[in-house]
Amino acid sequence: MSEFTKMRVNLDRIQADVETLASIGRCDEDQGLYRMAFTDADIEARKWLLDRIDNAGLISRSDGAANIFGVLASDHDSPSLVVGSHLDTVPCAGSLDGSLGVVVGLECLRVINQAGYLPDRDVELVAFSDEEGRFGGMLGSEAFIGNINPLSIQHASDASGFSLSEAMLSQGLDPSKVMEARRNPSTIDRYLELHIEQGPVLDHKGLNVGVVDEITGLFRWNLKLIGESNHAGTTPMEMRRDAFMGLADFAHEIPRILDEIGSESARATVGQAEIQPGAPNTVPGMVAFTLDVRDTNQEVLEALKDAFHRALVVICRRRQLKFDMNEVSSIDPVRCDSEIIKILEEGVTELGLKALRMPSGAAHDAQIMGRQYPVGMIFVPSRGGKSHSPDEWTSWTDIEAGANLLLHAILKLTAQKQSLK
Amino acid sequence: MSEFTKMRVNLDRIQADVETLASIGRCDEDQGLYRMAFTDADIEARKWLLDRIDNAGLISRSDGAANIFGVLASDHDSPSLVVGSHLDTVPCAGSLDGSLGVVVGLECLRVINQAGYLPDRDVELVAFSDEEGRFGGMLGSEAFIGNINPLSIQHASDASGFSLSEAMLSQGLDPSKVMEARRNPSTIDRYLELHIEQGPVLDHKGLNVGVVDEITGLFRWNLKLIGESNHAGTTPMEMRRDAFMGLADFAHEIPRILDEIGSESARATVGQAEIQPGAPNTVPGMVAFTLDVRDTNQEVLEALKDAFHRALVVICRRRQLKFDMNEVSSIDPVRCDSEIIKILEEGVTELGLKALRMPSGAAHDAQIMGRQYPVGMIFVPSRGGKSHSPDEWTSWTDIEAGANLLLHAILKLTAQKQSLK
Repeated sequence: MSEFTKMRVNLDRIQADVETLASIGRCDEDQGLYRMAFTDADIEARKWLLDRIDNAGLISRSDGAANIFGVLASDHDSPSLVVGSHLDTVPCAGSLDGSLGVVVGLECLRVINQAGYLPDRDVELVAFSDEEGRFGGMLGSEAFIGNINPLSIQHASDASGFSLSEAMLSQGLDPSKVMEARRNPSTIDRYLELHIEQGPVLDHKGLNVGVVDEITGLFRWNLKLIGESNHAGTTPMEMRRDAFMGLADFAHEIPRILDEIGSESARATVGQAEIQPGAPNTVPGMVAFTLDVRDTNQEVLEALKDAFHRALVVICRRRQLKFDMNEVSSIDPVRCDSEIIKILEEGVTELGLKALRMPSGAAHDAQIMGRQYPVGMIFVPSRGGKSHSPDEWTSWTDIEAGANLLLHAILKLTAQKQSLK
Repeated sequence: MSEFTKMRVNLDRIQADVETLASIGRCDEDQGLYRMAFTDADIEARKWLLDRIDNAGLISRSDGAANIFGVLASDHDSPSLVVGSHLDTVPCAGSLDGSLGVVVGLECLRVINQAGYLPDRDVELVAFSDEEGRFGGMLGSEAFIGNINPLSIQHASDASGFSLSEAMLSQGLDPSKVMEARRNPSTIDRYLELHIEQGPVLDHKGLNVGVVDEITGLFRWNLKLIGESNHAGTTPMEMRRDAFMGLADFAHEIPRILDEIGSESARATVGQAEIQPGAPNTVPGMVAFTLDVRDTNQEVLEALKDAFHRALVVICRRRQLKFDMNEVSSIDPVRCDSEIIKILEEGVTELGLKALRMPSGAAHDAQIMGRQYPVGMIFVPSRGGKSHSPDEWTSWTDIEAGANLLLHAILKLTAQKQSLK
């Protein structure tokens, strides 16, 4: 493969694709993009992608979960290398989350195809459906690994009560086909994903890329603390059962618990809280809130779960509150494939990049794929750590660096065996 | 006046009036009452009261702020003794807050009138407008003492943006007449108000009545802590500017500040909080919340203000947050008239009641009146401390006790001078 080691992506094409894609689903000024899964904008983006795949001389197709594929065919029937990300977005999104991984993957396959390089296995570009979880999970990648059942498909609905079936039918898609998106595991070799970091670390350290070694696991609880609402003037402090003060106590335990139990990658966040009845002159009778806890180590994550639970019990006993807990999400951490990490770190050296081996604090399709296949991830810096925001950005230099690193890895992972090592 | 000391209220009439009034503005089952100021229900209650006043042989009238009066006329032109409370309610209200003071006041004047007792001054029953503050303040009592100006009337609007002027005009009331509600201070002697405690103290101690010695002052702040919203998975704990964690720190300072600085009557409450953007997987970038702080001592209240402000400054420095503070309300504490307290405590003894001298933690029309006139308040127990709730209740025995205590005080305060002492 030596003749191909000088192969490089074409940044102009990446830039043009990013910009075109960023025009699909654009909201009013300064509001960024909104391509929620299975909306018109999302479908338009997929059609655009199918078109670009055809245009690049790749084989385009889609599956029952509406995942889009672009295949660079080999003349072997070895299991495929899959490369990709997603096209759907959160509200007020930037241009890069998900989209960049798809566009860069497309460019890698395009440049490989044009160079006449013959991989030792098919390379499949994928744009997974609904990574942002309109319907609760990561529909596309979960359907791909078969982690979905007819009942969950039937019952899936979004925050406004719109069902997955309605959403798919409204776009001419057949929800009964989602199950068919499951791929036979023997047809898949590995999965690679390039994604923006969505955090401040690479930007802060002035690096080009991150080589992901672990993808954080998480649990998310919906919690309620239930006390008694009373008049804020007439109820002596010692006679209160103030639900909000219970939450304040709980939030105060976060740093202690993370320090005592968490690994270096541990995070815990109270991101939502709603007080009932919610009047300035009324002692809060109830507070509903969310707790999002992450760690890259499964045992640590379990220990954190215990510790937060114990803290709740103690606070409720002290403040005479009750609590109600609902685990809405629990995702195991995933270790990236050591062979892929090695190849990526060799690529960093060969390409002369400044890089960091780092965990991913966000969940990605790679995490779902990682339950079944060896996976690897490349991060590019998020300026100011921003994502899920119109301010989300990455310098073109770093995008080019990340894209060439991905290209390098694809070439290494698909080199005819006699030339590997 | 000796022949009148055996005079007692008629509990049946009080009960009938409470029950009739509780049918006006009744919501669907279990939702209690809603007579927001200047709604149809509120106006209906006032019309009912005017009718009851006429029926009791008193002189009915209303003023420019739509305060309702029932006058038991004397043949002296000494300043009037005013007795009353309010008829408007919060949403999902019980039957007693405000209404009880009006009904019991009416019963006192009715029984006095029927007994042929001639007071040494006019006794005026009053039902003040908008005590619950639909338009920000206590419109009726504030207009009565002249603590209002044409500009504030013009700009007053409720939480849904409906203006005071629109609200009054829709009921055939003329907002330009509100200023005329101001009474010449030389025409008013004292103000007496019976009210439910709205707190748990009397019920907890098994007492019949409370003799209020001080009405708490308060300040209320609308606060914002402003940090930066970030991804909850990718943003390391030490790189966060988490606005909600700032609020948790602040809430944690409340007990310390009250212990160090507050008097026994001190209270502080965070009753409302709203996180932006408010997603489980997003570090809170902003939290808007309310702080309600009360104390019966003006100097202490000022010191509390300083202490809470300092706490905010320190927390914001530590967490790299900004804050925005808006004082939406500041009411000075009021001391009840010592002569009235003495008369009420004599009454407690004469009537054989179990009573407590206590502060009022809630604001009342008596507090507004107390800026200009000697005031006194009687509390009756709130079962379980509940108020602003359909569960609000007081035993009829205690209502009768409180009503007779009010009657006793009215008689003492309006006795022909030669018979006092």
